[in-house]
Amino acid sequence: MFYHIKELQFRAKPEKPDPVYARKLQEVLGGQYGEMSVMMQYLFQGFNCRAEQKYRDMLLDIGTEEIGHVEMLSTMIAQLLDGAPADQAEEAAKDPIIAAALGGMNPQHAIVTGLGAAPTDSNGYPWNSKYIVSCGNLLADFRANLNAESQGLLQVVRLYEQTTDPGIRDMLSFMIARDIMHQNQWLAAIEEIEQMDGPIVPASFPRERAVEEATRQFLNFSEGEESRQGRWASGPLPDGTGNFEYVVKPQPEGQIPILGPAPDHQHSAPGVKPYVANPGKS
Amino acid sequence: MFYHIKELQFRAKPEKPDPVYARKLQEVLGGQYGEMSVMMQYLFQGFNCRAEQKYRDMLLDIGTEEIGHVEMLSTMIAQLLDGAPADQAEEAAKDPIIAAALGGMNPQHAIVTGLGAAPTDSNGYPWNSKYIVSCGNLLADFRANLNAESQGLLQVVRLYEQTTDPGIRDMLSFMIARDIMHQNQWLAAIEEIEQMDGPIVPASFPRERAVEEATRQFLNFSEGEESRQGRWASGPLPDGTGNFEYVVKPQPEGQIPILGPAPDHQHSAPGVKPYVANPGKS
Amino acid sequence: MFYHIKELQFRAKPEKPDPVYARKLQEVLGGQYGEMSVMMQYLFQGFNCRAEQKYRDMLLDIGTEEIGHVEMLSTMIAQLLDGAPADQAEEAAKDPIIAAALGGMNPQHAIVTGLGAAPTDSNGYPWNSKYIVSCGNLLADFRANLNAESQGLLQVVRLYEQTTDPGIRDMLSFMIARDIMHQNQWLAAIEEIEQMDGPIVPASFPRERAVEEATRQFLNFSEGEESRQGRWASGPLPDGTGNFEYVVKPQPEGQIPILGPAPDHQHSAPGVKPYVANPGKS
Amino acid sequence: MFYHIKELQFRAKPEKPDPVYARKLQEVLGGQYGEMSVMMQYLFQGFNCRAEQKYRDMLLDIGTEEIGHVEMLSTMIAQLLDGAPADQAEEAAKDPIIAAALGGMNPQHAIVTGLGAAPTDSNGYPWNSKYIVSCGNLLADFRANLNAESQGLLQVVRLYEQTTDPGIRDMLSFMIARDIMHQNQWLAAIEEIEQMDGPIVPASFPRERAVEEATRQFLNFSEGEESRQGRWASGPLPDGTGNFEYVVKPQPEGQIPILGPAPDHQHSAPGVKPYVANPGKS
Amino acid sequence: MFYHIKELQFRAKPEKPDPVYARKLQEVLGGQYGEMSVMMQYLFQGFNCRAEQKYRDMLLDIGTEEIGHVEMLSTMIAQLLDGAPADQAEEAAKDPIIAAALGGMNPQHAIVTGLGAAPTDSNGYPWNSKYIVSCGNLLADFRANLNAESQGLLQVVRLYEQTTDPGIRDMLSFMIARDIMHQNQWLAAIEEIEQMDGPIVPASFPRERAVEEATRQFLNFSEGEESRQGRWASGPLPDGTGNFEYVVKPQPEGQIPILGPAPDHQHSAPGVKPYVANPGKS
Amino acid sequence: MFYHIKELQFRAKPEKPDPVYARKLQEVLGGQYGEMSVMMQYLFQGFNCRAEQKYRDMLLDIGTEEIGHVEMLSTMIAQLLDGAPADQAEEAAKDPIIAAALGGMNPQHAIVTGLGAAPTDSNGYPWNSKYIVSCGNLLADFRANLNAESQGLLQVVRLYEQTTDPGIRDMLSFMIARDIMHQNQWLAAIEEIEQMDGPIVPASFPRERAVEEATRQFLNFSEGEESRQGRWASGPLPDGTGNFEYVVKPQPEGQIPILGPAPDHQHSAPGVKPYVANPGKS
Repeated sequence: MFYHIKELQFRAKPEKPDPVYARKLQEVLGGQYGEMSVMMQYLFQGFNCRAEQKYRDMLLDIGTEEIGHVEMLSTMIAQLLDGAPADQAEEAAKDPIIAAALGGMNPQHAIVTGLGAAPTDSNGYPWNSKYIVSCGNLLADFRANLNAESQGLLQVVRLYEQTTDPGIRDMLSFMIARDIMHQNQWLAAIEEIEQMDGPIVPASFPRERAVEEATRQFLNFSEGEESRQGRWASGPLPDGTGNFEYVVKPQPEGQIPILGPAPDHQHSAPGVKPYVANPGKS
Repeated sequence: MFYHIKELQFRAKPEKPDPVYARKLQEVLGGQYGEMSVMMQYLFQGFNCRAEQKYRDMLLDIGTEEIGHVEMLSTMIAQLLDGAPADQAEEAAKDPIIAAALGGMNPQHAIVTGLGAAPTDSNGYPWNSKYIVSCGNLLADFRANLNAESQGLLQVVRLYEQTTDPGIRDMLSFMIARDIMHQNQWLAAIEEIEQMDGPIVPASFPRERAVEEATRQFLNFSEGEESRQGRWASGPLPDGTGNFEYVVKPQPEGQIPILGPAPDHQHSAPGVKPYVANPGKS
Repeated sequence: MFYHIKELQFRAKPEKPDPVYARKLQEVLGGQYGEMSVMMQYLFQGFNCRAEQKYRDMLLDIGTEEIGHVEMLSTMIAQLLDGAPADQAEEAAKDPIIAAALGGMNPQHAIVTGLGAAPTDSNGYPWNSKYIVSCGNLLADFRANLNAESQGLLQVVRLYEQTTDPGIRDMLSFMIARDIMHQNQWLAAIEEIEQMDGPIVPASFPRERAVEEATRQFLNFSEGEESRQGRWASGPLPDGTGNFEYVVKPQPEGQIPILGPAPDHQHSAPGVKPYVANPGKS
Repeated sequence: MFYHIKELQFRAKPEKPDPVYARKLQEVLGGQYGEMSVMMQYLFQGFNCRAEQKYRDMLLDIGTEEIGHVEMLSTMIAQLLDGAPADQAEEAAKDPIIAAALGGMNPQHAIVTGLGAAPTDSNGYPWNSKYIVSCGNLLADFRANLNAESQGLLQVVRLYEQTTDPGIRDMLSFMIARDIMHQNQWLAAIEEIEQMDGPIVPASFPRERAVEEATRQFLNFSEGEESRQGRWASGPLPDGTGNFEYVVKPQPEGQIPILGPAPDHQHSAPGVKPYVANPGKS
Repeated sequence: MFYHIKELQFRAKPEKPDPVYARKLQEVLGGQYGEMSVMMQYLFQGFNCRAEQKYRDMLLDIGTEEIGHVEMLSTMIAQLLDGAPADQAEEAAKDPIIAAALGGMNPQHAIVTGLGAAPTDSNGYPWNSKYIVSCGNLLADFRANLNAESQGLLQVVRLYEQTTDPGIRDMLSFMIARDIMHQNQWLAAIEEIEQMDGPIVPASFPRERAVEEATRQFLNFSEGEESRQGRWASGPLPDGTGNFEYVVKPQPEGQIPILGPAPDHQHSAPGVKPYVANPGKS
Repeated sequence: MFYHIKELQFRAKPEKPDPVYARKLQEVLGGQYGEMSVMMQYLFQGFNCRAEQKYRDMLLDIGTEEIGHVEMLSTMIAQLLDGAPADQAEEAAKDPIIAAALGGMNPQHAIVTGLGAAPTDSNGYPWNSKYIVSCGNLLADFRANLNAESQGLLQVVRLYEQTTDPGIRDMLSFMIARDIMHQNQWLAAIEEIEQMDGPIVPASFPRERAVEEATRQFLNFSEGEESRQGRWASGPLPDGTGNFEYVVKPQPEGQIPILGPAPDHQHSAPGVKPYVANPGKS
């Protein structure tokens, strides 16, 4: 169960409105790696958690924090939309700066949301739950989380570069800090699991049921061998089971696929007489 | 530019058809973490690569391999659909095993694809490109890749448990091996970057512009302190900038948000007389 | 069965082209609450209607009218796109008003639709049938309809404020009138049902099977009691079963959820030895 | 900002597992009118609220409660999935009840979520934010909310009829009660606004700018006049501006649309010689 | 403008209910190539038509017919759902035929639509407008239409094979006939355009601006030359400009792509010191 | 299995950057009829092919070529994004040309992809697999392919008109040539099948099971007979079975649909007393 308190977790006040930046900021609210994504991902991982309670509690703590980040961003976007020149069609026909602002803002901010935040990304594409994952395997889920915080922080930093408004940057400097903390958090949590289970997800599948040599071969599916120069192509495997091998010209081990003809009831085959495969009762 | 050769990378022949399993196997072909996802993710990361050529080459090598995995899975699914009893309505009304097979298979396999693989997941939901990411920051992208291989292998292992067909398991034992290799590969590539830049993405944002204390605080947004027990709540931060702090009862630092009233042209305010904010030319 | 006649239901001629406004107008054609939505919602409610024929007839009458509204809006949008400066790349590089028009219009109007209307919203997001509902319960469906006409009219009024073109406003003044009528229509239809069944959907569920006190409590899930001031927090319940109660600090009545451990075949548990839960035939 | 407490708002414990019902229950978790929808709708309406603080507070109170409903349903679904026979392929081939359970459950519960709840509906379709609306006009938004609670309660009641498990029905009897309360709540809030502004959204548009007669005509777009029998076709208009009129055979008032020919740069016109409309620099 | 008449275009009465077949039939109502698709595709092509009025009229005639097909299919589906055993949970636990029916039907038919048709496909995936196209070039649009009628008829024939219910087959025998007619119609319309313009869309692009040899080469991007055996690899080009050429081993003509490094404000580059590219005002 | 070589199939170098055109070019990369669509459509048709191997080989040859087209377009887009003025907020506030460029570019290019290509269309809508079809009937699939190449080429030609950059036009002149070739290819392949089977898909359905007269009637569902003037309304049917007939005023042949009342467990019927249809165990 959840409670709300009325203050925001951190200040969210722009110095002045900017409807074009409001559109951009939507990306980290309702985009693929926005705050809605981490909020819902952590909450679902917490609700579904079948491991020790400390993991569930930790996931729900951070998920609960992220609801507050959605709140901060929504508040900021609504304020950036104050004074959007949406009704100034005649002015826009003469003033190119107004025209550019109208062209660059999200029209739905002035038609649909009443100058409020939308649960969408910077192109108006709706948030959807395929952005998130909750698989029940802690190491896999924590890697999803580390990835989400990495992509998310990168996007916030890029947005930081795209404004100089002190109020926006003030809020972003807090969100950046939390994303740094959350990367640290998932790195630490991953370390805890990897020390127990090693780095392969899932650790519980018996290695002898996997095709042995295929677990260590880098396959060079191209002409030229630039890909040989990386850490991934030679030296010890991170899981400690041997060394990387570089296969210069991989060869197929499978058959040429030849599928059987389509059954009659599919009506796919050319060159046949008309028929009904399932003639029916009559 | 790409070439095709006709043999599969590995054997893909089921011992016998199984249309219900064909539906399940769609998950790792066209689902969120299926082979289409890693194929497109690696190809786009490669095409967009602005770093050293060894990274581009490596990304396109593995992306090219994954096209072949899509091919293997599609071939397997088509063979599992041989002999699907789609036209046996009358038999199904009497034989519950046939009825269950009809109910459990994907109807689109018999209506849309002509008993072929579909570019969708196990519920018929289409693959879409929001499953993938290509952000240009190598560490962030490699973490996305490690996550994808972790989730993907977990799903393949679960599917391995859900059949005992030797032919299917033969193919899966190869795909499992490749996913183990690919986890090793991304772990090694991540290690290479982290040794240069440290573990925070992006490393290039100056820490003094982030709210300092917020980069190390675990905020306990719940009653009870189970979440204190993990590695993420005490001890050194993985990025080496200090130690985790556990904040038992986080307090807000922001304002109570009070948005300005809606502008007239939005027609949101209650209790006003009829008007037109933009009266127009006439 | 349906017939078409060639005249539009009402005039739809802009005074002059405006490709940026054409993009905006897409919102009320193919957006969440556009004419495609009410058209399809009323048609499906009519086709599925299991109540008296007067309801089916009424639903199909209004659904049929809405097809004509889609026609009017499409015609308007096509005319607004006449003369769109899509091919004037060199001019745009010098003239900021042309540049803003190009940036503000929907590129698909000039690449995909051949300067015609698209079945999408103002951001190019496609119409989809999850925008609509047809549940078979008349009161629930009519409330969906009243909501759709309320949201739709609000959007049309906002768009009216964003242009002063007399031809566009002429058409909108008709669409606004019809939306007013349709709100009146659903209000009247709702009144008819509520007088028979009361205001709770579905009326047919026996109240004694619901947790009694929970049917009248406003739960204040926040610090502070501003929410106490509204009609929803005190006084008689609209369904006549008692009075609202304001619960200042709601308490949980459920368990702390503790899920069982994941079964072996899910490979979710950390710290276990490798195994196969389903060893298979061999 | 938000806090979490560990107990559920109400009991959520099934008597016994039922993976097929778990799939069904997804509808009211992640479907069009599930708990995720009301949770996100109320939160966004609250975050975007530009009206008196009592409305914001009320919206966030109920939005916060709904987060807890998502938690309850997720917990229930996870427990219903305990013991799902996902790995019993050989048994299913012989036992039609197991085969039917496997065919009827959501395969993603056993492949993707690790026997946890998914943020999707009963067909595995992901929740997306086009399910919700936050338009800033209180009456319009409250009508959206009343509709959501009406559709939602109807679905919960139908699900109540589809099980007899006492534990599930116990939880549903609470959710039903809350949905009854929430319908009461929105009815009361709507009444409060309508008494000030009348029943048309938005009240602020001047009636004289709408085509007058079109605001009261029911247009009978079909042969036969069954639709004349309802409250919507005669008697006083709910907005008090006159009486409904029934138009037996509506006539068009607009032009036959004749669009201008496509411009050259669109390459749409048949029967012309090859050309380049924009010859370019050279 | 449109009118409705109450009779269906053709009979639509099943002999007996069949909820599993109702789910399947959804494919040709709301699937990628269902009746909703052709209805909306023809209507939008008609509304957007900038060519001679005979084309617009023809497109709207057939589009109007298709609305009636949506009506017929919806009616059929609703009748197939009569008596669906949705509430027989206890019976299903014992009777595998009931269990299979419950597992094989679409749960939303019993939870969402009130045993009515849904605007979705056979997997519950919603219809969306990216299924259709209206590009303004008649030949291109007519080819889209011929494809839609070909895919659609194929699916209807497959569904015909999957039932023997005389009532369903009666309706399908009419829909099959109309799809045959509509294929004939588009073939004839295509012939009319091709006789004027030749077979390449768009005919108006000057051939000398295309890379000449690339307009006739079949490129064999694989080992082995089975693809040489078809009509597409030798003999005259259908557009009359020469002969097909078979290129056994295609060679690249482009550069090795080497992208410039990412600009600083993207924070993509590894191995650099922390910085802010856009330092801002202060 | 697939191999990659590092050179592009053709040159892809713009003369100068243009972030607004980069957004537009996304349409033919990741839009409905972009290169991703033909790539995936041909690959899936090849993988699923149950006909002679020459068809499979041909499909995979062209599918493999299209992967290289995705590569070319991605490379071009990345180069067009070099130097995008994403971080010049202050300059944009003063310079309307910069402001227009910022408004007209895709914000995700500067926030999400790191100035790389996105797997989306020109409005940022993600590619999804419902854009493609693989039905197994060669004639139907080849018609889908001819349509895709027709729509695709039309879009490329429109984009050619919207730039005069010699480098972009150089690449487009190659892509145009290939699309001309591919139209020729599918025309030839279609001819090969039609000569065997005639022009109706599927040829294998027995004509006597279709309602005879309905296979040749053009139904004039409108007032006025402009639609009579086309080839589709008179003269011989393309399938050779008779002549088109023009039906001036089509009459319904079906029933007025009257659905049975909703069953009790659906709680749809108005005016009934509260009940539970499925009372349950107790």
